[in-house]
Amino acid sequence: MKKVLFATTALVLTAGVAAADVAVSGDGRMGVLYDGADWNFSSRVRVAFSLSGQTDGGLDFGGSIRADNSAGGAAGTAGEVWISGAFGKIEMGNVVSAPEALFGDLPGVGYTGNDMDINSNVTVNADIPYLTLDNSTQSAMLYTYNAGAFSVAASMTDDTGQDATYGVAAAYTFGNYTVGLGYEDDGTATQAELAGVATFGNTSVKAYYADASDRTLDTGLEVDSAYGIGVSSVFGATTVKGYVQKIDFSAGSAIDSLTWYGIGADYDLGGGATIAGGIADNDFDGFDPVADLGIKFKF
Amino acid sequence: MKKVLFATTALVLTAGVAAADVAVSGDGRMGVLYDGADWNFSSRVRVAFSLSGQTDGGLDFGGSIRADNSAGGAAGTAGEVWISGAFGKIEMGNVVSAPEALFGDLPGVGYTGNDMDINSNVTVNADIPYLTLDNSTQSAMLYTYNAGAFSVAASMTDDTGQDATYGVAAAYTFGNYTVGLGYEDDGTATQAELAGVATFGNTSVKAYYADASDRTLDTGLEVDSAYGIGVSSVFGATTVKGYVQKIDFSAGSAIDSLTWYGIGADYDLGGGATIAGGIADNDFDGFDPVADLGIKFKF
Amino acid sequence: MKKVLFATTALVLTAGVAAADVAVSGDGRMGVLYDGADWNFSSRVRVAFSLSGQTDGGLDFGGSIRADNSAGGAAGTAGEVWISGAFGKIEMGNVVSAPEALFGDLPGVGYTGNDMDINSNVTVNADIPYLTLDNSTQSAMLYTYNAGAFSVAASMTDDTGQDATYGVAAAYTFGNYTVGLGYEDDGTATQAELAGVATFGNTSVKAYYADASDRTLDTGLEVDSAYGIGVSSVFGATTVKGYVQKIDFSAGSAIDSLTWYGIGADYDLGGGATIAGGIADNDFDGFDPVADLGIKFKF
Repeated sequence: MKKVLFATTALVLTAGVAAADVAVSGDGRMGVLYDGADWNFSSRVRVAFSLSGQTDGGLDFGGSIRADNSAGGAAGTAGEVWISGAFGKIEMGNVVSAPEALFGDLPGVGYTGNDMDINSNVTVNADIPYLTLDNSTQSAMLYTYNAGAFSVAASMTDDTGQDATYGVAAAYTFGNYTVGLGYEDDGTATQAELAGVATFGNTSVKAYYADASDRTLDTGLEVDSAYGIGVSSVFGATTVKGYVQKIDFSAGSAIDSLTWYGIGADYDLGGGATIAGGIADNDFDGFDPVADLGIKFKF
Repeated sequence: MKKVLFATTALVLTAGVAAADVAVSGDGRMGVLYDGADWNFSSRVRVAFSLSGQTDGGLDFGGSIRADNSAGGAAGTAGEVWISGAFGKIEMGNVVSAPEALFGDLPGVGYTGNDMDINSNVTVNADIPYLTLDNSTQSAMLYTYNAGAFSVAASMTDDTGQDATYGVAAAYTFGNYTVGLGYEDDGTATQAELAGVATFGNTSVKAYYADASDRTLDTGLEVDSAYGIGVSSVFGATTVKGYVQKIDFSAGSAIDSLTWYGIGADYDLGGGATIAGGIADNDFDGFDPVADLGIKFKF
Repeated sequence: MKKVLFATTALVLTAGVAAADVAVSGDGRMGVLYDGADWNFSSRVRVAFSLSGQTDGGLDFGGSIRADNSAGGAAGTAGEVWISGAFGKIEMGNVVSAPEALFGDLPGVGYTGNDMDINSNVTVNADIPYLTLDNSTQSAMLYTYNAGAFSVAASMTDDTGQDATYGVAAAYTFGNYTVGLGYEDDGTATQAELAGVATFGNTSVKAYYADASDRTLDTGLEVDSAYGIGVSSVFGATTVKGYVQKIDFSAGSAIDSLTWYGIGADYDLGGGATIAGGIADNDFDGFDPVADLGIKFKF
């Protein structure tokens, strides 16, 4: 704490008595990654902070940020801060879009998720190709509200240095089924998404269909629609996961479509350690399969 | 811990058994900011570490650093490290100058402090325009000593890559009044500051006068003198704050003077959450008022 | 935590319930540094995280990273992650080479270690000039195994963007003596190291001899061999340390050899605080001695 004599000072109070809680956790992974040409070592270790508190009136608030992107947290472009109550939950920072908030992504495979960019918008991973908020360069806002089986979400970014974007989504759960609808607008393009989840015993299936308008990838390819399905099945300590996704490009594009898939398995060692391996590929000419095998840790 | 067999090794001991304490806290804020043209979202989340220990002989020592500027902490340009005892307190790192250490700044308004640079040295915020140590690019030193109602402070930076700078300050408290005197030298310019605080019940008033010599801002304007006053009043859960500051420029400058002010209110929600809003403006031609409204959190 | 409705999502789980432990520690230092020309202030403050867990089957795992290099931790180029069991210990990340893992470095002097680069590979510090893994730009792997008095280690980096490198080492302890042998290959050069430690009461002596082939420093000097000795002696709260190292360059080099040394003392104040000072120099023409005096803290 900076020593300050006078009582009216407004110096930043970063190191004062904690009025609420900070939980410290971490994750790590180590293994080998086949990038389509060679097997390479790949590892990482990260620390995360989860902040939480409650007002006298019973509103919950909090935030989260990792050590490695904490500079972004101070700029509003990483992590998030939120407040919630009977009105729902308002989050700001590097939040996901409303559809992603409700539908998430398909089940990722491998200990790294088999990320490998082949162009700036299409990667061979389990991410659903949502339109907005994927690479936020400013603080965005996400609102979510749950009322029993019904959930709604709205997200937006302002027009600071870019077009304003927004997204809305809703989901409804009945028995073992959940269905959802989302819509996104990035100022130029729009995209509607239909998503559904079904759970049968230890197996969960998620599928989506996305219909885009005026959405052009950085490669110049114009997306007409995208769809995909993912499955996750638990057999004791083993979880088997897989997904297939396809983008159909608009008539006249250099290629008609791109299909990519991933399949993998996790084996839970207990205590926060999991052995995980996966393979992913697409049907793009000259793109070779990628694969990984390693251990993931949660601390 | 790196595995090392031999006992005389000098590898860095970063992850050993803690011989003293590390407290983890955090802060966050979310809201909307009017930058003079548009309302925009603005949020951030930060984590801070406060380190403390005591030698066998009873000297206290410690340090503080945030996650987001921790790289600066390792370089000596962010955070600080200190030791204190009957001799006073010696701090090194990104410390403030001696006058700022004793007098602080005027009460900031809004949930962001309404920062908006209009030139590199004058912003419409509650910071008193001290001469030295504001943007330290190297480790600086601050010494403070308290003896009952009397406090003194001295600060300095060495001449590595810049002129050596120093500052001295003293303050005296009698009843509800505190007065202080400071002097700073950045190698080119000097500045003397007179500051006073008066506390009446729940209201606190702080005022300063600064007299500069040879101080030229990056805009080419030469500062003759600066003065300001700030007020903070507590009414139950509400704190109302405001300040006015003015710089008189030397004869022949492009403008005669610059006046800026801010006014705002905080409402304490308890548990570390505060609703805060403020507005700030100056009389510079073409500069529009800035304002913000949001929630601040302490974790 | 991001709010996600559907169960099969694969969003990153960074802020979930900790399945294992994260210990937070820190270090700091403050003092003055003589860089051969001027005395300057020098300070720093750092926070470190040590992660640990255990699988249900009894394998230990963990990792370590500091806040200030946490971005490197997420990229695999700083910190490390490890798993260990009866098979030994496997680490990945910014690990040291196998010889350094077993032999460490000579005892560093001063509160800063008297680092001062005089060229990119030779500094006046206590580091033994190992060949590989000193400035890792990718995740490397280190394997260590202990069986009573016998230890072995192997390290390697893959050929991503550079030549593959590897190192092997072994050490044996008998009574107060330990001897070790290491070998490193960076794809171009190789280096063999012989190291020994002897402990007599409160004094510990470490010596090494390194024989290089085709090893050229960035200055163009070709290393023929290097050798050095370090001593650390404890007298109550005081530890006196010193080292001498010499590199003999190959015939025809611009200079025949370079010798450098350091000597210093630490005084333990208890509670994690240590006063430390040191001086280091070399026989390179025009290089002046460097020295420091300050306080080191462990939190």
